[in-house]
Amino acid sequence: MDGQAIAPPAVVLLSGGLDSATVLAIAISEGYRPYALSFRYGQRHEVEIAAARKVATSMEVAGHVVMDIDLRAFGGSALTSDLAVPHHASVEELSPGIPVTYVPARNTIFLSFALAWAETLGASDIFIGVNAIDYSGYPDCRPEYLAAYEAMANLATKAGVEGRLSIRVHAPLAKLTKAQIITRGLALGVDYAVTHSCYDPGPDGRPCGGCDSCLLRQKGFAEAATEDPALSV
Amino acid sequence: MDGQAIAPPAVVLLSGGLDSATVLAIAISEGYRPYALSFRYGQRHEVEIAAARKVATSMEVAGHVVMDIDLRAFGGSALTSDLAVPHHASVEELSPGIPVTYVPARNTIFLSFALAWAETLGASDIFIGVNAIDYSGYPDCRPEYLAAYEAMANLATKAGVEGRLSIRVHAPLAKLTKAQIITRGLALGVDYAVTHSCYDPGPDGRPCGGCDSCLLRQKGFAEAATEDPALSV
Repeated sequence: MDGQAIAPPAVVLLSGGLDSATVLAIAISEGYRPYALSFRYGQRHEVEIAAARKVATSMEVAGHVVMDIDLRAFGGSALTSDLAVPHHASVEELSPGIPVTYVPARNTIFLSFALAWAETLGASDIFIGVNAIDYSGYPDCRPEYLAAYEAMANLATKAGVEGRLSIRVHAPLAKLTKAQIITRGLALGVDYAVTHSCYDPGPDGRPCGGCDSCLLRQKGFAEAATEDPALSV
Repeated sequence: MDGQAIAPPAVVLLSGGLDSATVLAIAISEGYRPYALSFRYGQRHEVEIAAARKVATSMEVAGHVVMDIDLRAFGGSALTSDLAVPHHASVEELSPGIPVTYVPARNTIFLSFALAWAETLGASDIFIGVNAIDYSGYPDCRPEYLAAYEAMANLATKAGVEGRLSIRVHAPLAKLTKAQIITRGLALGVDYAVTHSCYDPGPDGRPCGGCDSCLLRQKGFAEAATEDPALSV
């Protein structure tokens, strides 16, 4: 023992995108020992998982699990079925309402696996990169949803019932704009060159530049007045 | 159109055990068109999945999905890791407290996939065979847990936000003893010969007779004053 306290473990949901990479950096900056959790859920492209691995490695996580779950068995989203991902010329043209790229109950499923791992690790803290401003209208990104999830989670586990865990769901990006997220991440040393945001990348893995996620990313870097390093890789 | 109303869809969690087979029969008796959802989650034996398929077929479900999720990546339970399943000589010897066969956040994960499928199907109703009496002390079988899950689920989905779904989690066995469950199921025509309850079956798939689940099943059939047809297959 060197006298240093061991950092408490935390489970961090990590998609390999800009937001979750920033969340991972925030968890580390707050003194947690991060365990990253990613999902292969019938995405069209492996590039998301490859990005998650690069982000996890670049931030020296304590562990990284990539869980396979085939949500294609249920269908119902452009991200997991044959529905087309919509493209737009600019961020002003994004459709109102909840987009077809919504995946039914996705964050609920992701948080539930995070809860399982948290209990196994003895971790009270789960980090998720949802965002209530530039969030494209997903219901499972709203603060009232996250509060209800936390209340449920604290009734769900053996460790909770036995008083050893009190689950907290951290959503540190909830009230930040994309530009604020980028500024925060850059201050924490996030290497955005290894992150990936596009819903519909080309065969070479390069972003399409026209999906909702690409447009929000472009707007964020423009407003943060900095270049997106992923575009010059 | 023949004038008959189309039965509303419901997602029914189906393990292939006695309880979930009874729940499926109850959902059908209440007029639902059932979609059965089973999980291969790192169980030691395929016999559970085989039983689920037999139960689903025998009750003519509208659909059956077997989802693969490898909870072994997290560890932490005798059902998914190398911990030994405890054996007892009689039901009186069952240990107090939550057993090592508890799987972290299992019902939370199962319900979350059910929620995803429910939204895709346009189903407001989810059935789960949890039981608060003979339930071996699992936290995620308690009524307060299920109520919190339902509250969260109604904030989680696009269909909920848009007013098209109002999720109800049905736990029709919650207040029944094992004997009452069996009596109810026999009245509904459940074929318990195809169900499987054992946590630790032999290489031939036959029940061990000494795990918590076997002992509770034996006690239930004894109290219902009927033979377990699975023992004479």
